Amino acid sequence: MASVRIREAEEGDCGQILGLIRVTAAGREPGAPEGELAEYEKLLDQVQISEEALRADGFGENPLYRCLVADLPPASGDAQGQGIGSKIIRRVAQVALDQGCSQFRLAVLDWNQKAMALYKALGAQDLTEAEGWHAFTFDGEAMRKLAGK
Amino acid sequence: MASVRIREAEEGDCGQILGLIRVTAAGREPGAPEGELAEYEKLLDQVQISEEALRADGFGENPLYRCLVADLPPASGDAQGQGIGSKIIRRVAQVALDQGCSQFRLAVLDWNQKAMALYKALGAQDLTEAEGWHAFTFDGEAMRKLAGK
Repeated sequence: MASVRIREAEEGDCGQILGLIRVTAAGREPGAPEGELAEYEKLLDQVQISEEALRADGFGENPLYRCLVADLPPASGDAQGQGIGSKIIRRVAQVALDQGCSQFRLAVLDWNQKAMALYKALGAQDLTEAEGWHAFTFDGEAMRKLAGK
Repeated sequence: MASVRIREAEEGDCGQILGLIRVTAAGREPGAPEGELAEYEKLLDQVQISEEALRADGFGENPLYRCLVADLPPASGDAQGQGIGSKIIRRVAQVALDQGCSQFRLAVLDWNQKAMALYKALGAQDLTEAEGWHAFTFDGEAMRKLAGK
């Protein structure tokens, strides 16, 4: 079996990246070849970003994010079970070290035991469990109100 | 009473910023004029960053962070109780909107009810409570192991 290739995303990947986030809006099950993220996270109604915004945010002069993608060999079948998650996290570790980071963090939902088990097996610590960290968000409406707009 | 001024941090602020993070290593109580952050967060042993790293990370070609500071009028006394937290969060909301962000997030410890109450009063939602998000970290040792270094 040809191996998965992890690489930096390019601007031309944004359509597929959005697909991976959004396709499950059509109701695909986790495990379908594409687009399991949003459905799996049970947060489909929060996916509002467009391909144009993904391009602008990630590939302009001051990128707001970086992204790795996994290229699968043609006809490799179901994307699960090939260790892609581990491979991407290992690459993230390399990128983070190259950038001089002292740590890197992930956000995961408490019912997603499969992901939690993977992260822990790879050496991560659950800071919410260990120290009590909570993530707070100010959404668009709250932001505009705070900013007086 | 002269009002607090919120502004973008400059490279020359890094010494004082580090002081605000680290001074409480000497055991200051929350409420002391300087450096309450680390003590208040009860995570002093995790504060390892140097002033040089703060300068390099925040004021190089591709800054890894942005920082706002609050200038207090001379002889303004105890820094608490002047609404500085609210003012900084309002400014963060303006910066985030200007950057095209759709939301912004904060991390807070679960025993820090004062901060949680402030954020909620300003319109934030506790995503850990509402949706079950956990923060996971890969620390330096875990990163190096993952990266094979």
